[in-house]
Amino acid sequence: MLDGTLLELPALRHTPAGIAVQEMVIGHESQQQENGAPRRVLANVKAVSVGTQAIAMGGLQLGQALRVHGFLAAASQRYPDRLVLHIDEYELLN
Amino acid sequence: MLDGTLLELPALRHTPAGIAVQEMVIGHESQQQENGAPRRVLANVKAVSVGTQAIAMGGLQLGQALRVHGFLAAASQRYPDRLVLHIDEYELLN
Repeated sequence: MLDGTLLELPALRHTPAGIAVQEMVIGHESQQQENGAPRRVLANVKAVSVGTQAIAMGGLQLGQALRVHGFLAAASQRYPDRLVLHIDEYELLN
Repeated sequence: MLDGTLLELPALRHTPAGIAVQEMVIGHESQQQENGAPRRVLANVKAVSVGTQAIAMGGLQLGQALRVHGFLAAASQRYPDRLVLHIDEYELLN
């Protein structure tokens, strides 16, 4: 689960098989505990939504606060250490 | 939470303040559902442990299966989209 703000929302695209794909970047900012001390956390998380959910997310506005649930996967086999969050579910926070 | 296998475990290092830091790469492989279809997921996740836990994790063996809990953060302010998993807790799976 990740809370954040929609920073980037490029145009919706489709796979050769016609499946809708919406890529985005979610800006995450929080305070966490690490080694017993508070720590400010920042991260710009590349994320993707596929299918009917992609079409719905395509209508969101930049700056939208949202919570997303999903799984981490490599951006591609060529770059196994570049991570993309695949969104299963999302909810708007404002 | 992430399940995976320890792929890389460079030498333990210390911050200028003397805090132990253990970086690592965890190979994650799973089957997930996306847009109603099963999907094989691969990811090499850069991770870090800090303090006493770092020293404990420094003793692990490559190939060790483990489950880790923590939070995602940018690798640095310069690269806000490169993600590192900061490990709060871990458990061995074999």
